[in-house]
Amino acid sequence: MREVAIIGIGQTPVQEHWPISIRHLALEASLNALHDANIEKVDAVYVGNMMSGEITGQEHLGALLTDSLGQTGAEALKVEAACASGSAAFRVGMMAVASGMNDLVLVTGVEKMTDTSGRETTAALAMAADAEYEVAQGVSFVSLNALLMRRYMYEYGWERKDFANFVVTAHANGMNNPNAMFHMKVTPEQYARCATIADPVGLLDASPVCDGAAAVILAPAEYARTLSPAPIRVRGSGIATAPIAVHDRKDPLALEAARLSVKRAYDMAKVKPQDISFFELHDAFTIMSALSLEASGFAERGQGVRLALDGEITLQGRLPIATMGGLKSRGHPVGATGMYQIVETVLQLRGLAGKNQLPNARLGMTQNIGGSGATIITTILEAMG
Amino acid sequence: MREVAIIGIGQTPVQEHWPISIRHLALEASLNALHDANIEKVDAVYVGNMMSGEITGQEHLGALLTDSLGQTGAEALKVEAACASGSAAFRVGMMAVASGMNDLVLVTGVEKMTDTSGRETTAALAMAADAEYEVAQGVSFVSLNALLMRRYMYEYGWERKDFANFVVTAHANGMNNPNAMFHMKVTPEQYARCATIADPVGLLDASPVCDGAAAVILAPAEYARTLSPAPIRVRGSGIATAPIAVHDRKDPLALEAARLSVKRAYDMAKVKPQDISFFELHDAFTIMSALSLEASGFAERGQGVRLALDGEITLQGRLPIATMGGLKSRGHPVGATGMYQIVETVLQLRGLAGKNQLPNARLGMTQNIGGSGATIITTILEAMG
Repeated sequence: MREVAIIGIGQTPVQEHWPISIRHLALEASLNALHDANIEKVDAVYVGNMMSGEITGQEHLGALLTDSLGQTGAEALKVEAACASGSAAFRVGMMAVASGMNDLVLVTGVEKMTDTSGRETTAALAMAADAEYEVAQGVSFVSLNALLMRRYMYEYGWERKDFANFVVTAHANGMNNPNAMFHMKVTPEQYARCATIADPVGLLDASPVCDGAAAVILAPAEYARTLSPAPIRVRGSGIATAPIAVHDRKDPLALEAARLSVKRAYDMAKVKPQDISFFELHDAFTIMSALSLEASGFAERGQGVRLALDGEITLQGRLPIATMGGLKSRGHPVGATGMYQIVETVLQLRGLAGKNQLPNARLGMTQNIGGSGATIITTILEAMG
Repeated sequence: MREVAIIGIGQTPVQEHWPISIRHLALEASLNALHDANIEKVDAVYVGNMMSGEITGQEHLGALLTDSLGQTGAEALKVEAACASGSAAFRVGMMAVASGMNDLVLVTGVEKMTDTSGRETTAALAMAADAEYEVAQGVSFVSLNALLMRRYMYEYGWERKDFANFVVTAHANGMNNPNAMFHMKVTPEQYARCATIADPVGLLDASPVCDGAAAVILAPAEYARTLSPAPIRVRGSGIATAPIAVHDRKDPLALEAARLSVKRAYDMAKVKPQDISFFELHDAFTIMSALSLEASGFAERGQGVRLALDGEITLQGRLPIATMGGLKSRGHPVGATGMYQIVETVLQLRGLAGKNQLPNARLGMTQNIGGSGATIITTILEAMG
């Protein structure tokens, strides 16, 4: 198996991009990545996207993007794993290079959520859950996360205010990310006072509906140095599944797919949790941050919230998370999110994260969650030095 | 790169499966494939599907199927490339095994088209074309194929009746396939008399809207013989793209993506067109059969129709096509079609094609077309003997 490296990155700002179609969002991020890698052509294009069919009436994004890039002829596919679609496309790109079937690969995550010609966005997002056994009962992703958060508070004695620092930290970090959706500080008092959406989930527990695209260029690590002054090695990659419906999981607070995917990524990278410098986790809802920290080996069961309370997750803490704003402040254009996490991790490892640059960023880890935890993908990246 | 083999196959009948959900269609084909391979567990599940979001309100089919199979924990993704989604998932499965990242892989193509909770089926299928520059003008796949067929007839002087044998042959072959949608002979007279849908495309030029699923188990070829009495080697795989909109192609009758994908598959397999024993092509419309035969090196430009006229495409001909009924008679559940083609090719290579068994089936080739020719995937299979 060939080792794989990232030799270029690109992104668009995350916003409500009303004047821009999904085609042009994907194109902008992809052209930025090609420009960053200083190449013109790739062998293959893998697009991560969840709901372009529902929202835009457009499937076949692989061919659409390849065409828009002027690279017809190249291999192209779309990959979907609900909100983990971005990392899922990255995983396919990695396999394409690792197998030797392709050398230069573009992976682009893209989602346009704000302007729908089909189901409205909350209903489209619910396609990530079990249509027959969850959604038909009226469940949405906000209510699923509310159930998990309520159960977590009940089991471990936390109060909603204890989650505040996940939000405060994300928004503080997003202030310095020009591509973030929000440039707005949030105080613990604002978090406490915000409107309730589905008790105990408040507006500020949830990531926003938005549009965006992010992309990378992959190449074999063996000759990445000849192509890039600062290649990033893919050290670990792990993907795992759990029952799609929350009520079918033996232990809904365990994020079993995270535990498995992290173990696979750690094993492949031959590292331990304490080796990870920072963690771009999937803070779509505050409860998901707590559960992800626990399942990934950074906190004991029921103690993920304590890392936030103790300030361990800030840029100065023991395990910085959401260093460019995370899903909460940078935004969560679902099929693009996994690729934003990877692009931001590359920025940190290259020393190009601006005011949010971590002093000793050596090994960065991303974790992208599909649905309420049914598909979880963990990726570990390292500068090739 | 590890060589890859098929060690198990499964399928459901192609029908209007009103009482069966997409979950259970995928499950049935997958369980059949696991049973055929005599294994219980796989490392990864790749699902080919185009429009479960639109039709059923269900995305995240990778996790859904893995869960339904009782195999949570396994890697799982959905892969989409319009009507080529089945072969696209097969391609990802192949890369997963070839790279060494997984050993035992289930690839399942599934589509449920007949019972929609979203866009109606013709509109959902049109998501494979360019939403902004084709579909917004009122184009559907029937009308796109009508434009191509009319142009072909004009350029090369053929009449509609010259296409009859594509349909006659497919329906004759489908008679002996218990999983085919139609068990109904069609005569040239019936073909000539059928209702016109979009001139010159008649009802009998077009494949039907239907439901179905087909699946294979992949394993490394090096130990496929220890797992299966009759493993099938993946000799060649090629995928290529062309402009998504017909009007953007320099030469709409050339199927440039087919030419490229076939060249890649031939190069990988180190074979020539004359080495191919039979060809499961993408006869979604009769015009596509003609164009595919030409782009794949089996007929000169404008002469694909002659192979049908001369009877070369029957089971007794020089190049049998649609040996189990093809898209026209077996049916075209879009995201499943590529996997049906592969499963039927395996049946021929194993000598298990029943009354339609070819006497000297050595190298079988499949070709799966996404959209009006924007993504084309060619696969060459061979019995390991």
